[in-house]
Amino acid sequence: MPEPRPPFRHAFRVRYSEVDYQGLVYFAHYATYCDVAIHEFFRALPYDYTEVRRTAGTDFHVVRALVEYRRPLRFDEAFEVEIRLGRIGRSSLTFRPALFALGEAEPRATAEMVSVHADQTSMRAVPLPERLLELLAPYRP
Amino acid sequence: MPEPRPPFRHAFRVRYSEVDYQGLVYFAHYATYCDVAIHEFFRALPYDYTEVRRTAGTDFHVVRALVEYRRPLRFDEAFEVEIRLGRIGRSSLTFRPALFALGEAEPRATAEMVSVHADQTSMRAVPLPERLLELLAPYRP
Amino acid sequence: MPEPRPPFRHAFRVRYSEVDYQGLVYFAHYATYCDVAIHEFFRALPYDYTEVRRTAGTDFHVVRALVEYRRPLRFDEAFEVEIRLGRIGRSSLTFRPALFALGEAEPRATAEMVSVHADQTSMRAVPLPERLLELLAPYRP
Amino acid sequence: MPEPRPPFRHAFRVRYSEVDYQGLVYFAHYATYCDVAIHEFFRALPYDYTEVRRTAGTDFHVVRALVEYRRPLRFDEAFEVEIRLGRIGRSSLTFRPALFALGEAEPRATAEMVSVHADQTSMRAVPLPERLLELLAPYRP
Repeated sequence: MPEPRPPFRHAFRVRYSEVDYQGLVYFAHYATYCDVAIHEFFRALPYDYTEVRRTAGTDFHVVRALVEYRRPLRFDEAFEVEIRLGRIGRSSLTFRPALFALGEAEPRATAEMVSVHADQTSMRAVPLPERLLELLAPYRP
Repeated sequence: MPEPRPPFRHAFRVRYSEVDYQGLVYFAHYATYCDVAIHEFFRALPYDYTEVRRTAGTDFHVVRALVEYRRPLRFDEAFEVEIRLGRIGRSSLTFRPALFALGEAEPRATAEMVSVHADQTSMRAVPLPERLLELLAPYRP
Repeated sequence: MPEPRPPFRHAFRVRYSEVDYQGLVYFAHYATYCDVAIHEFFRALPYDYTEVRRTAGTDFHVVRALVEYRRPLRFDEAFEVEIRLGRIGRSSLTFRPALFALGEAEPRATAEMVSVHADQTSMRAVPLPERLLELLAPYRP
Repeated sequence: MPEPRPPFRHAFRVRYSEVDYQGLVYFAHYATYCDVAIHEFFRALPYDYTEVRRTAGTDFHVVRALVEYRRPLRFDEAFEVEIRLGRIGRSSLTFRPALFALGEAEPRATAEMVSVHADQTSMRAVPLPERLLELLAPYRP
């Protein structure tokens, strides 16, 4: 059994272009932050989905994205998105990202993002690659 | 009792800036579309939240945003966001937007967005204004 | 000689996601508005660049974008982008968009956007299609 | 006379949300990258414009933004924005950002961004703060 690893984290700083009238991050950008962090998580594994798309013709599609907002992130705040794994299905993968302002233990927001692994021509769901399952094993809850 | 009205709809066309590598709308923008349509729904009521913020010092904050993706919207597609009301609480308001490509009966995506009405100084939840409840009545499911 | 036509205009309303801390449209979005209006101008001609890309393998690339800001656009303001043609070269096309708040004669901002028509494989500039030049003729200054 | 310093640089990686149909960064985002880098340049000086806005009631407004595109940035590419100073007027400040892919000497794009220092109530231009001029001195060309 693989040795468990601590959850992956990726660092951000709120951009001026991302805040609204109230100086708070516009709500839809939280999902973008989670997506960026998931891309970085794949890079860290390392799992090259771009290569897989080119060679196997399969890729991930988001089918469900949920964000729950607790306390807002503000302009210029430094924060991290932590990536935790949720359910790993036959062809689906659930991430449970959480956004933490620097040095805080309580997340500002939590998310759930479900992606399905699909053939890019038929758009049919296909099983998650074995190689990916091995790489994810140390991060399983 | 107020006469029921059909759900509000607002028309869009997918912008080039909103699609990704695959020519599909980037997933986080669906929530932005829903938000734009909710602003237009308030305008149609008509409920002027900007005026309320200035005079009563209260405003809405999104506390939960869920999008479920069925079939992707593509560059240049014309579509509508339909706004249905969900649960109306003491200080919270749930919208159930759905995105329909022009002329289609099955939504491409559905959403659930919960907002809380809060005092902008104390950030405490405050009851929904009576005037708003009256305006919403014809749209109640 | 073709009969001259008045400049093309496309209508917008400022989205909440597009304003910044000061309630003013974030400066980079002005270029996006111009781009959306240029797409709509092509639709109105009608010139189908998507079809041309598929059949002739050529497309436009922005090589220069300039925006000059006079007075800011604010949240919820209705405005129009007017598309005027600038220089039409052998393979390049210059647009001079201007953004007008509804009912105003002085633009809030003016822009200059230069695109080059290029082969998508070699990325070499290729002459503008004859058909496009004919369609543009009535809009020449 | 202050000792000259090398131009400031800030590192980025292209986000999936920032690329278009062709896998290239959407042209309007280049200006956003420059803006983010200018904010980081101010932080490095260090010049706290947020504090100045609160205490002196003045802030910067972009009045002109020009981007010239040479070769596109692609999804996932690492790059840096280099901030060079241009003309420093009585109340205006010109930045000449350039975007370099990691390890490259030729910029992918260059920009010119002119900001005016203005009173936030009257919106009249006011002289650049002495303190800022001192901090900028080592970066003058």
